[in-house]
Amino acid sequence: MQIGMMGLGRMGANMVRRLMKDGHECVVFDINPDSVAALVKEGATGATSLEDFVGKLKKPACAWLMLPAAITGKIVDEVAALMAPGDIIIDGGNSHYHDAVDIAGKLASKDIAFVDVGTSGGVWGLERGYCLMIGGPVAAVSHLDPIFATLAPGAGDGTPASAGTASSGYLHCGPSGAGHFTKMVHNGIEYGMMAAYAEGLNILKSANAGKAHREADAETSPLKNPEYYQFDIDLAAVTEVWRHGSVIGSWLLELTAGVLKSDPSLEKFGGRVSDSGEGRWTLKAAIDTGVPAPVLSSALFTRFSSQGESEYADKLLSAMRYAFGGHLEKRKD
Amino acid sequence: MQIGMMGLGRMGANMVRRLMKDGHECVVFDINPDSVAALVKEGATGATSLEDFVGKLKKPACAWLMLPAAITGKIVDEVAALMAPGDIIIDGGNSHYHDAVDIAGKLASKDIAFVDVGTSGGVWGLERGYCLMIGGPVAAVSHLDPIFATLAPGAGDGTPASAGTASSGYLHCGPSGAGHFTKMVHNGIEYGMMAAYAEGLNILKSANAGKAHREADAETSPLKNPEYYQFDIDLAAVTEVWRHGSVIGSWLLELTAGVLKSDPSLEKFGGRVSDSGEGRWTLKAAIDTGVPAPVLSSALFTRFSSQGESEYADKLLSAMRYAFGGHLEKRKD
Amino acid sequence: MQIGMMGLGRMGANMVRRLMKDGHECVVFDINPDSVAALVKEGATGATSLEDFVGKLKKPACAWLMLPAAITGKIVDEVAALMAPGDIIIDGGNSHYHDAVDIAGKLASKDIAFVDVGTSGGVWGLERGYCLMIGGPVAAVSHLDPIFATLAPGAGDGTPASAGTASSGYLHCGPSGAGHFTKMVHNGIEYGMMAAYAEGLNILKSANAGKAHREADAETSPLKNPEYYQFDIDLAAVTEVWRHGSVIGSWLLELTAGVLKSDPSLEKFGGRVSDSGEGRWTLKAAIDTGVPAPVLSSALFTRFSSQGESEYADKLLSAMRYAFGGHLEKRKD
Amino acid sequence: MQIGMMGLGRMGANMVRRLMKDGHECVVFDINPDSVAALVKEGATGATSLEDFVGKLKKPACAWLMLPAAITGKIVDEVAALMAPGDIIIDGGNSHYHDAVDIAGKLASKDIAFVDVGTSGGVWGLERGYCLMIGGPVAAVSHLDPIFATLAPGAGDGTPASAGTASSGYLHCGPSGAGHFTKMVHNGIEYGMMAAYAEGLNILKSANAGKAHREADAETSPLKNPEYYQFDIDLAAVTEVWRHGSVIGSWLLELTAGVLKSDPSLEKFGGRVSDSGEGRWTLKAAIDTGVPAPVLSSALFTRFSSQGESEYADKLLSAMRYAFGGHLEKRKD
Repeated sequence: MQIGMMGLGRMGANMVRRLMKDGHECVVFDINPDSVAALVKEGATGATSLEDFVGKLKKPACAWLMLPAAITGKIVDEVAALMAPGDIIIDGGNSHYHDAVDIAGKLASKDIAFVDVGTSGGVWGLERGYCLMIGGPVAAVSHLDPIFATLAPGAGDGTPASAGTASSGYLHCGPSGAGHFTKMVHNGIEYGMMAAYAEGLNILKSANAGKAHREADAETSPLKNPEYYQFDIDLAAVTEVWRHGSVIGSWLLELTAGVLKSDPSLEKFGGRVSDSGEGRWTLKAAIDTGVPAPVLSSALFTRFSSQGESEYADKLLSAMRYAFGGHLEKRKD
Repeated sequence: MQIGMMGLGRMGANMVRRLMKDGHECVVFDINPDSVAALVKEGATGATSLEDFVGKLKKPACAWLMLPAAITGKIVDEVAALMAPGDIIIDGGNSHYHDAVDIAGKLASKDIAFVDVGTSGGVWGLERGYCLMIGGPVAAVSHLDPIFATLAPGAGDGTPASAGTASSGYLHCGPSGAGHFTKMVHNGIEYGMMAAYAEGLNILKSANAGKAHREADAETSPLKNPEYYQFDIDLAAVTEVWRHGSVIGSWLLELTAGVLKSDPSLEKFGGRVSDSGEGRWTLKAAIDTGVPAPVLSSALFTRFSSQGESEYADKLLSAMRYAFGGHLEKRKD
Repeated sequence: MQIGMMGLGRMGANMVRRLMKDGHECVVFDINPDSVAALVKEGATGATSLEDFVGKLKKPACAWLMLPAAITGKIVDEVAALMAPGDIIIDGGNSHYHDAVDIAGKLASKDIAFVDVGTSGGVWGLERGYCLMIGGPVAAVSHLDPIFATLAPGAGDGTPASAGTASSGYLHCGPSGAGHFTKMVHNGIEYGMMAAYAEGLNILKSANAGKAHREADAETSPLKNPEYYQFDIDLAAVTEVWRHGSVIGSWLLELTAGVLKSDPSLEKFGGRVSDSGEGRWTLKAAIDTGVPAPVLSSALFTRFSSQGESEYADKLLSAMRYAFGGHLEKRKD
Repeated sequence: MQIGMMGLGRMGANMVRRLMKDGHECVVFDINPDSVAALVKEGATGATSLEDFVGKLKKPACAWLMLPAAITGKIVDEVAALMAPGDIIIDGGNSHYHDAVDIAGKLASKDIAFVDVGTSGGVWGLERGYCLMIGGPVAAVSHLDPIFATLAPGAGDGTPASAGTASSGYLHCGPSGAGHFTKMVHNGIEYGMMAAYAEGLNILKSANAGKAHREADAETSPLKNPEYYQFDIDLAAVTEVWRHGSVIGSWLLELTAGVLKSDPSLEKFGGRVSDSGEGRWTLKAAIDTGVPAPVLSSALFTRFSSQGESEYADKLLSAMRYAFGGHLEKRKD
């Protein structure tokens, strides 16, 4: 079937490619004409303006937006202004699910359906397929089923498709907002899993702490039993072995093993970990609903710290220690 | 080759079965004669006492112990007393790696090798193979290679074995203690991953909080935007869809999806989560070496809370609130 | 000077008493006429309706609201409708600072000043004075200075008043919203301090764990060194001694020592710890601004857990353990 | 009465001064002869060697050690070798309570009493008195009562002494080890309280986040409501006002207000927060006894992070993000 795709970054462009490979017709648009041109070469129909983009869509028009969260709302308004009753707007970006709830309500009065699709799979989605978490009205979601079926991985691992579309990698989670809500929590879990691996590997890396000289002063806690910290663990090998038969095997572990194989000391990275919002929103939902989320919040807060945001708090601690105990700070290495 | 296995519980018995299936000769012993008899029927050589067990092992004798951590040390001493220089004792249980370091030192003076093997794979190991993290002297570990190769999953997923044994599912991590150390951290990570999934799913489960009536009193935080919490999410379907193409896919998620499919409300469980020690030890190692582990510790502490151990602290909080604000406690449902 | 007080609960009534004792004239109103009557007996001017209440206030009318957060917004609107330009509404309750920002903007167009006052001191405020964190326009805050000076403790501890009003216990923190923002963070810190004491005392209480029998099964982590956990610590005495010269002395500790003296086992409490919203809002502000708050969030989440909200997550953990390891749950005592 | 003091650093020297002011006779020793000379000038009896030090003590000899934890054990052995049955060794340093339990057992066989005294009060103890948490045999502790009574603050705040010595600031907590155990938990709580203040103040400091320009890219979570983050809060004034009548008033807050008054931006500090061991030991005790301590552990781990120990974990997170999503790290400022 035909679908329009606006926002041809890493994700959007690859989704177009996966759709075209399976025979779908794609109308594409981006503020960067080069991005449009590239996909036109591969068989897509290019658009030169928003009007042109919506104009080229057959009825009911289906426009999939793959844009930064910060501008999605504005563009949805502009696209909707060009649409007619019965048309469908799909937001596949990392937008806040509140926006989906609000926008869907607004568009419903114009009889335009709003479908929010949480999309996981990253740069690997082109090849592996994308996991799709979908919110929106039943009719619109059903209409888009061929698109979802193509984008999703499919039940390629032998699982019988009897469990519905979930075992093919896409799921209608509920009304508008339910898709982004589910994707939001997915990312919250992702933060927690990533942190679990990172903390564990950091401990393994310190398994040789007993070999290092440690100063014995009143500001440094002594390592009582250095004989128990004499191991030089090969982290690349350990992450590789864990992939085979252990309880903690996962796709993230597979990627991590790959990274550590080529760059065990991670020289290329500085350790400033970004967060794009979904971890924050997950925690706000936990707080609103009174659900404890100590692991997910710890994972989020270590990212904030990596961004330098604990600096003032740390200085306060040093200042207090000086004030009550006369403790002089050791220099930061 | 021949190997002795003592401790024929769930793990030990299945390991014997996997070894025999691949042609190894197993001498088996357990304090429960029925456990011995069962494996004898399947082809193992049974032993009636520790003396008999060690006596039936060809030189160099290789005795694999699969016992509760609490008694392993004592049994190692008894087995070692019956052994000769050049023999090998393997501890495949969830022992503390400190014990492995200590025991190895003690046995080295008698020229008996001590090999500690962290074993992951649970009840699925018989079929899938066990992930083995191995510590000990090179010669002994090499001698046991055929055993490890059989127990491990093998490179069945197509990965070339070029990366060494790790891609077959077993790894010599370092000297005695390194195996249990690596397994300990593995379990620490496991706690963190499990908690990440559990917290996320708990938030998803509360996505319908806006439908519930919430009292408006000074003791209850109001839900400001109930319109954003109107989703009834199907957790079994969501865990299933996440298995296909998402970033958080894992073997644990696969098991979780299976559990939720058959019992979405988890009626069979009360929520008292045991911990068998390795999460605790992981944190102690983090503390000793000064490595931050907020996620792993949060995961451990929620288990302690599930065991009822936060009760007195909670009562103190209620008491303080009463003392400064006259707040009366709401009844626990 | 004259002030109107609406909302004569524990906090509001005591504030009226403290104000009258210092010579201020109080007009009082509550939906419960008995609450009004009680204060009229003590010298206040009673009102029988909102109209009567506002009508009895001299110009510029100053109406202080001490109401549950959930209804404050609605009442502010009703009071404002009865007021004239130049009048002042004060919200002294535990409202969200967002509301203060929004309301202030709305009322500014009518030239009615909105002053948000975070009020700490609890049931002890009548005697000790209230700590006041104030947001709002300079003119209105200045006009109310005599009221604030009376409600606050004053510089009774000998601190020279040279530091401005802060050392008398009240502070103009900034424009509308700044008062409730500061009070919100105050309460967030309160959660953290309370939890720090509660956790520490819970550890002290377990200092005799080595005396108890502990089962040795695969589901229970063994206590390796029971000889180090043989202490029966008197928590009432310890909290008392800490009040005298230690680094952790505080008013909360004083109250805690008092509680433990009369009821060391805290039989009167069940351990369900309420939260009235400010801890949640503090965390949301931390999340919005990217500030790590692991301690404050841990404190909040233990409250959620005490309310039973971790139950489903705990069941999931037990279910996973059963799925991968065949671990049977121990019964919850 | 007479007492010997060895270790004349900040704490030891001030304790000698407080003891002499109250009429006690002090024999003093330190490896630094200047420290001895300084106190001799103020009236103490100096010693030139360990032998001289013990030799000058009247029977029963009472030797108080105020030494770094790392060397205390060795010096206790040397002092004990010079002592006779009935003598008393007091350890007032920040030693691990395990050592107290072990040493007490060893010395008991020689009929030398070992008394462990946890000492809080820091550089302010000389003037305010020290809070003393005492472990050891009843007879020895009773013998030392005049010393403890002098060092402690006394019931100067009007509290009747009826509650026993606790309300004078010293407490016999139990057998050997109970003093250091109680002090250890005291410091654990201290970490939690300090972190609660530091996190809260860091959030207050960010209350103006809405004024800053924030980039809108896919790596940065947008601040949705900048209008709610427009406050420039005066942290020195806020900490001052909280001291007067609020629920979170404490001695630590008093010190913090003092620090912020003179140096609001904390330029003098770099934010590397040391930990001297007691926070670590507190958590190990929590882990051993299965007591949840999420707040205390979060406080400890932020210190580890401030020491740079989360760097490798952070790099791993960036590497994983790059691996699954192609996310490029933003530069660390």
